[in-house]
Amino acid sequence: MNYRITIQYDGSRYNGWQKQGNTKNTIQGKLEDILSRMTKEEVEVHGAGRTDAGVHALGQTANFHLKEKWDPKQIKEYLNRYLPEDIEVTCVREASPRFHSRLNAVEKVYVYRIGTEGRKAVFRRKYRYLYPGRLDVKAMEQASASCIGTHDFKSFCANRHMKKSTVRTITGITFTEEDKDILITYTGNGFLYHMVRILTGTLLEIGAGMRRPEEMKLILEGKNRALAGKTAPAQGLTLLKVRYGDEDEI
Amino acid sequence: MNYRITIQYDGSRYNGWQKQGNTKNTIQGKLEDILSRMTKEEVEVHGAGRTDAGVHALGQTANFHLKEKWDPKQIKEYLNRYLPEDIEVTCVREASPRFHSRLNAVEKVYVYRIGTEGRKAVFRRKYRYLYPGRLDVKAMEQASASCIGTHDFKSFCANRHMKKSTVRTITGITFTEEDKDILITYTGNGFLYHMVRILTGTLLEIGAGMRRPEEMKLILEGKNRALAGKTAPAQGLTLLKVRYGDEDEI
Repeated sequence: MNYRITIQYDGSRYNGWQKQGNTKNTIQGKLEDILSRMTKEEVEVHGAGRTDAGVHALGQTANFHLKEKWDPKQIKEYLNRYLPEDIEVTCVREASPRFHSRLNAVEKVYVYRIGTEGRKAVFRRKYRYLYPGRLDVKAMEQASASCIGTHDFKSFCANRHMKKSTVRTITGITFTEEDKDILITYTGNGFLYHMVRILTGTLLEIGAGMRRPEEMKLILEGKNRALAGKTAPAQGLTLLKVRYGDEDEI
Repeated sequence: MNYRITIQYDGSRYNGWQKQGNTKNTIQGKLEDILSRMTKEEVEVHGAGRTDAGVHALGQTANFHLKEKWDPKQIKEYLNRYLPEDIEVTCVREASPRFHSRLNAVEKVYVYRIGTEGRKAVFRRKYRYLYPGRLDVKAMEQASASCIGTHDFKSFCANRHMKKSTVRTITGITFTEEDKDILITYTGNGFLYHMVRILTGTLLEIGAGMRRPEEMKLILEGKNRALAGKTAPAQGLTLLKVRYGDEDEI
């Protein structure tokens, strides 16, 4: 049986989603350990987005196959009982046998939260990046427009040895304000390694007046990571949602 | 000069507001250390509510006297620069010479946040109490009505050697729902030591069906701490606001 789950986590004390080689303390690892204990078989959990160390999730999606049939409610209760307090499984349901959380994903939504005006925002402090200066949001919005559509995002990919295509489609970059924080919401069919954080870092440099909004287009066309801005800190980023085709939509 | 400040804090890692004898790591202590360093004089900070260890604040108010005149903006910046990331001063302003944050307070508002249905709520986990069972909110509301008005709240006071009056006026206890959490908001002219937490603990026992709503009145009339319920955990409690008379209102 194939199961699909939705997960929330505070990524602050984890080495990201993916268990890779000897990487300890990952979200994937925590889930696999508990599921393997529950079923007495080795379980592999596939995540939709491989969030970096320190990145959070409100709607990460994953799937895994179990040899026997389990009650989704029972799986959810077992996971939440043994998962630490900073990881929660919010939904478990049966999926079609061929469903794969990453390969079937048609859209992902990430949000990057920026604190401004020196406000510490005590209760949100671990889920935002407190930018130390003023930002021209209008300039950032103008620059972001160049990224909408299908482009080669090589300039915004931290993986220098990426052999696969670096072409992705971004359908939306929107700016909203919440409790005086700036929220940048990125919607697209997929994002490269560090792509949202490099886009945000570049937009921050534009917002701070270090670069002009028109540069964004040139950075994109240059297809060279060195042209783009710094990688924005992980703690401001949250994977909000993963969407699938109609068949797999809840 | 007398200064009045508003403070937010995540109380999780502090021994409460008040510096008492050898108590280290208090909010009051942190503020006094920084203000004394700034002014090169010994500064005493008076808080409106002596929040317990682990209790949070969104609108704690305090005041302190300085020998010289300082720019409120400068005080605010200095404090926020040296305060840890879980304490923030959101407002500093000059106050009349006789203003005292605790003695002049006319109303305090506390909110107690209860998680239900086993939902972990990863991002709020440190600011709520996850109740392990179901709650009958209607019964809790019914019971809370007995507490409205001016009463001797001796049954809800953890200080057995309280020599001063235990009479207080509660003007409101309201129940609201936010993201499936139950929020109980207490408004009154003052609260005794642990009073909000003992009231909440008693309401939880009523909500869980361990006591009947009618018992609340008898507990109040009994004027005996042993009659009331357990003290609810500190982490669910937040001091929301302190109100003053017109003269000192912002």
